[in-house]
Amino acid sequence: MNKEIRISVFGGGSWATALTKLFSTNTPHVCWYMRDEEAIENIRQTKHNLNYLSDVEFDTDKLTLTTDINLAIRQSDVLVFAIPSAFLADELNPLSESLTEKVVFSAIKGIEPNSGMIVGDYFHQLHRVPKENIGVIAGPCHAEEVALERLSYLTIACADEAKAEAVAAAIRTHYVKTKISDDVVGIEYATMLKNIYALAAGIAHGLGYGDNFQAVLLSNAVREMHRYIHCIYKAERNIDGSAYLGDLLVTAYSLFSRNRMFGNMIGKGYTVKSTMAEMNMVAEGYYAVKNAYLIKQKQECPGHTPILDAVYQALYGNKRVSQVFKELTTKLD
Amino acid sequence: MNKEIRISVFGGGSWATALTKLFSTNTPHVCWYMRDEEAIENIRQTKHNLNYLSDVEFDTDKLTLTTDINLAIRQSDVLVFAIPSAFLADELNPLSESLTEKVVFSAIKGIEPNSGMIVGDYFHQLHRVPKENIGVIAGPCHAEEVALERLSYLTIACADEAKAEAVAAAIRTHYVKTKISDDVVGIEYATMLKNIYALAAGIAHGLGYGDNFQAVLLSNAVREMHRYIHCIYKAERNIDGSAYLGDLLVTAYSLFSRNRMFGNMIGKGYTVKSTMAEMNMVAEGYYAVKNAYLIKQKQECPGHTPILDAVYQALYGNKRVSQVFKELTTKLD
Repeated sequence: MNKEIRISVFGGGSWATALTKLFSTNTPHVCWYMRDEEAIENIRQTKHNLNYLSDVEFDTDKLTLTTDINLAIRQSDVLVFAIPSAFLADELNPLSESLTEKVVFSAIKGIEPNSGMIVGDYFHQLHRVPKENIGVIAGPCHAEEVALERLSYLTIACADEAKAEAVAAAIRTHYVKTKISDDVVGIEYATMLKNIYALAAGIAHGLGYGDNFQAVLLSNAVREMHRYIHCIYKAERNIDGSAYLGDLLVTAYSLFSRNRMFGNMIGKGYTVKSTMAEMNMVAEGYYAVKNAYLIKQKQECPGHTPILDAVYQALYGNKRVSQVFKELTTKLD
Repeated sequence: MNKEIRISVFGGGSWATALTKLFSTNTPHVCWYMRDEEAIENIRQTKHNLNYLSDVEFDTDKLTLTTDINLAIRQSDVLVFAIPSAFLADELNPLSESLTEKVVFSAIKGIEPNSGMIVGDYFHQLHRVPKENIGVIAGPCHAEEVALERLSYLTIACADEAKAEAVAAAIRTHYVKTKISDDVVGIEYATMLKNIYALAAGIAHGLGYGDNFQAVLLSNAVREMHRYIHCIYKAERNIDGSAYLGDLLVTAYSLFSRNRMFGNMIGKGYTVKSTMAEMNMVAEGYYAVKNAYLIKQKQECPGHTPILDAVYQALYGNKRVSQVFKELTTKLD
């Protein structure tokens, strides 16, 4: 048991639920913030989050459940955000507490859409969290499998290795192994890009491309990811590592991935609007692709990114998706 | 139409059938050898190979169908072998024609089990085919998808680029794109190793490991493949290319892969013997793993290969498979 570290988890979704399960196994007390008062009341009464991973039982004596974001910030030194990036700014709106002394770990997959920044940069620039206090918790990880206690490997990154290790110690259990990294920026971008490539895999599937093409698409995607991240932030990294290729695979090959499902509907000919209405949820990749495209243009990246470009065209352009992907097939190898 | 090249295909299975379909689209005449006289009679009568990819229709006027391996060798300059590696030596037994003037391309996935050699080395050393006349046809490619004319990308490798290009020209159509490489040895080893990693993926699935672990396993597998091949034969190669990572993905994620199915049964507790009896077919990976393990020991490779070692233990060792994989999980990251 790690008695020292005090952690607050922000978010009421499946990943926040899984992380709270892990932290409350390893630390004496966890503060869990979510916006939904009714969900909190349900957890208090039933010891389960009925909305997500409802089989997981919580020892509510070890939890402070709150809708007060400032309380959750005051309670802890380490803040773990698992709010969908599209809602992050809104949820931080009532913030009055300072974050400058806090350690902030992002478990958010994607880009904060208003600022167009990765989450670490967002907290650094808008909330003056020092760089050495910023970290990321990365997959490959379906939250559902953490709930089922199936073996998973998480990568915990922070420029300050001691902080990464402290958070890792609060996460690992007999079914979760952890790895430390200092490539916060690279992993954040990889996490954003994999959602875009999962969209691409979904679109291809929806258009009727088969397994052979899917494998070629992902082989190209990991090379494209490498070029993109290398252009943004040069560092020693093995792109075939679990936090990069591994996370790409678990997302792109998962039939349950929202991004893949979203792409699949686009491939089948639904409009973006009707896909959103039908799915009744946010696919992070939809916002990510626009921002990734803009960032790329700003950076004047030398490497070509045909898959990103194609997904951008498919979601935001005027051409028919089938035509966009037909052209993409000539750019892969 | 490529009028120059004369190709003979050796083998009666699905990959031989798919390749014959491709070659007979692009060249005026193809010689197709297989051992099974009845299958040949069926093709002559029905224009379909009733045993494999039975929807594919052949223009039998363009085919010489024969059970005489020497005739098939005399007829052509380019010989494409798609016989399971376990049967190669047997099928070559009646050989009286010389191969020294022939161009030999392997579409065989694996190692020739008697010699422990990759197929290119086997033809070079046992049949004196010059190195510059030896090539390989690599995926990612399910033959079934070629039959369905779903877009696929093949890599055609030969030390002599002109020969690779000639074979590529005889393969590519509107649904098959081709890429040229000179890394014959690297691709042959990759093709062998991916079957072993597909076995590993199947074993993990059979033991109850989930998608998170599967992604970590394959992220580790591609890094292990890189170390292994680099030790055997140093060359400039991007291990994330389609012929390496792509082929690994299509095999390991395919529920129809024989190697994956074989592994799955081993993971579920069947013995090797009962798995073989139940499946009534050969999983290339079963032989590959023993040979890959022996080759590794001979080469004194410095890189560690925990996945190969675990599959070897699981199939040839005395320990319980669950214990072998439990130990493997501590060696991945």
